[in-house]
Amino acid sequence: MNPTLATRPAHSTGDLFKPIQRDLEIAERILRETIESGEPGVSRLINHLSHYRGKRLRPALLLLTARACGAVERPHHVLAAVVEMIHTATLVHDDVLDGASVRRHVATVNAGWGNQASILLGDYLFTHAFHLTSTLGEARACRLIGEATNRLCAGELHQICQRGNFDLAEEAYFDIIEGKTAELTSCCCRLGALYSGMDDDMVERLASYGRYLGLAFQIADDLLDLVGEERSVGKSLGSDLEQGKMTLPLIYLMHSASGEKTRRVLELLKNPANHKREQLAPELAACGAIAYARRRAEEFATQAAAQLVGLPSSECKSILEHLTDRVVNRDN
Amino acid sequence: MNPTLATRPAHSTGDLFKPIQRDLEIAERILRETIESGEPGVSRLINHLSHYRGKRLRPALLLLTARACGAVERPHHVLAAVVEMIHTATLVHDDVLDGASVRRHVATVNAGWGNQASILLGDYLFTHAFHLTSTLGEARACRLIGEATNRLCAGELHQICQRGNFDLAEEAYFDIIEGKTAELTSCCCRLGALYSGMDDDMVERLASYGRYLGLAFQIADDLLDLVGEERSVGKSLGSDLEQGKMTLPLIYLMHSASGEKTRRVLELLKNPANHKREQLAPELAACGAIAYARRRAEEFATQAAAQLVGLPSSECKSILEHLTDRVVNRDN
Repeated sequence: MNPTLATRPAHSTGDLFKPIQRDLEIAERILRETIESGEPGVSRLINHLSHYRGKRLRPALLLLTARACGAVERPHHVLAAVVEMIHTATLVHDDVLDGASVRRHVATVNAGWGNQASILLGDYLFTHAFHLTSTLGEARACRLIGEATNRLCAGELHQICQRGNFDLAEEAYFDIIEGKTAELTSCCCRLGALYSGMDDDMVERLASYGRYLGLAFQIADDLLDLVGEERSVGKSLGSDLEQGKMTLPLIYLMHSASGEKTRRVLELLKNPANHKREQLAPELAACGAIAYARRRAEEFATQAAAQLVGLPSSECKSILEHLTDRVVNRDN
Repeated sequence: MNPTLATRPAHSTGDLFKPIQRDLEIAERILRETIESGEPGVSRLINHLSHYRGKRLRPALLLLTARACGAVERPHHVLAAVVEMIHTATLVHDDVLDGASVRRHVATVNAGWGNQASILLGDYLFTHAFHLTSTLGEARACRLIGEATNRLCAGELHQICQRGNFDLAEEAYFDIIEGKTAELTSCCCRLGALYSGMDDDMVERLASYGRYLGLAFQIADDLLDLVGEERSVGKSLGSDLEQGKMTLPLIYLMHSASGEKTRRVLELLKNPANHKREQLAPELAACGAIAYARRRAEEFATQAAAQLVGLPSSECKSILEHLTDRVVNRDN
C-alpha cells in the first residue's frame, strides 16, 4: 500500500474535475494496487511516484469522455489507471533524458535514486500498464493502448534523433508532438467513447478532439519551457534549449530571421552556456514567435472544440469544452 | 528495411537450431518489419540492433516447444518475434544500467548514441512488442506477455534495490533471477505449448521446463561474468562486481567465510578499484563457491530435463533436452 498517493491533494485541475472526482479516485486506487510491491526497496521507490501525481489530464480525459457519452463502467476505471501509468512511465524516463532534478517541486526519481532505478521503474510501469490492460480480456483495448504508446515512443525517439538540428522544419515538429503527446490524449478520448458504446463516427470525432487538444497542450507546454516561470510551473525549465530540441517559437524565429541575425541566433542555440533562455526571450518576443506559437495552439484548441458538436449537452461536455481553453491559457 | 539483420550469421547456437531455422527466419522478418521506421535517424538506430542479435534462445525455446508439441503456426512466429523484441529491449536498457560499452564484440547503443537514445529505443521495442502481441486478437497472449515482462522488470528493479547489499540471502538471489530471467523463458515455453493445443498439464510442465532452464542459464551467465573470458563471451565482464550485485558464488563465499576473511572479502567487494575480478577468483575457487554455483545450475538443468518426460520423442524434444546441458556448459 502507498498511503502518500491517496492523501496528497490533487493539483490545480482538482476543482475542474469535480464531477469525475470519485471515478479518478477509483482509477487511482487501481493504479496503486497494481504497482505495489512486497519488496521494501522497490516499495520506497514506488511511493516516491506520489510526487509525480499532477494534472491527471489523461485519466480525466478518458473519464470525462466516457461520462459525456454515457455511463462510466469498470473498463473505464481500469483504462484510466492504465493511461496514467503510461504517462507516469514516460515522465520518469523523461526526467532521466532531461537530467531533470525537480518535478512538481520535489526531487525526481533519478535525482534521488539514480538513473538506473529510474529506467527500471519506467519499464516496470510500462509493463504493468500493458498487463493491467490485458486483464480486461479484450484484445481491442490491448491493441489501442499498444498502438498509442508505440507511436508515443516513436515520437520521442524522432525528437531525440533531431536534437541539435536547428534547421528542423515545422512539419517535423508537428510530427514529433503528434506522436509524443497527441497520440495518447487521442487514445484516452477514443477509449472513453468506445467503452460507452458510441457509434464509430462519434468515436472518431472524440479521438480527433483528443488529438487536437494534445497538440494545443504540447505547444503550450513547449512555450512554458521557453518563457514560463519556474516557480509556478514547478519543474526545471529551459531543458528543450539545453537539449538542443527545437520547439515551435524557435523554429519560427530561425525561419523568420536572415543573414547576421540567423547567425547570432544559431550561435546562441549552439552555445552550451546556461543563459540561453534569458538571451533568447527578447528575440522571440520581437519577431512575433511567441504570439505565433500561441495562435497555433489556439487554432488546434478551436478545432478540438469543434469536434464536440453533436455530443448531447452535459456537465462533462462543458468541461471538455472548457479544457480546450484551459490547456492553452495556463501557467503550469 | 534493415538488411544487416537478415544477413548477419547466427551466433554459436545456429546449428543446434537447424530444424527451426526457417521458423526463426520468419520470426526475424516479423520483428524487422514491425520495428522499422521511415525516419532516417530512428532507422539508423534500429539498424544497429542487428549487432544485438545473439543466441536467440527465447524465440528458439518458443518454436522448439511448439514443434515438439505439434505444428508451428502463425501465432508462434509472431510470439517468437515478440519475445525476442522484449529481450532486446532489456539488453538495450541493461547496457545503460551497466554502463557497458561492448556487446557481442561491437559498440553498444549507449556507447554510440548516448543513454537518452538507448532509453527511448528500449521503450520503443517494449511497446512494439505489446502492440505486435495484440495483433493476434487474443487477450490471453497479451496477458501472458504482460505478466512475464512485468515480473521481469520487477526482478530487475529488486536487483538494483539490492545493489551494495553484500549480505544478500541466497533466497533473494533466486527471487531476483527467477524474475529477471526465468519468467520470460518460462513464458516462451508456455506460449509454444499453448498455441500447439497442448492440454493444461503439459502446458504447465513445459512452463516449468522453461523456468528451470532460465534459472540454470542465469546462474551460468553470472558465473561467466565472474570467471569467464572476455574474449569468448564478447562483452564487458565483471559488471556485476562493479555494480555491487551479489551473485551465487559471491553469496556462497560471504556465507562460508568468517572473521578476518569475511572482512577481507567485504573490503574487496566495497573497493571501487578495477581489479576485483582477478583478486576474487582465487578466493572463489578455494572455498568451493564456483563448484557450488555450477552444481546448483546443473540441478536446475536436471529438473528442467525431467519436465520433458511424457512429451513424444522428436528431433525438437531432443534439442530441448540437449539445451539443458548446453546452457550450463558454455563459454559465451
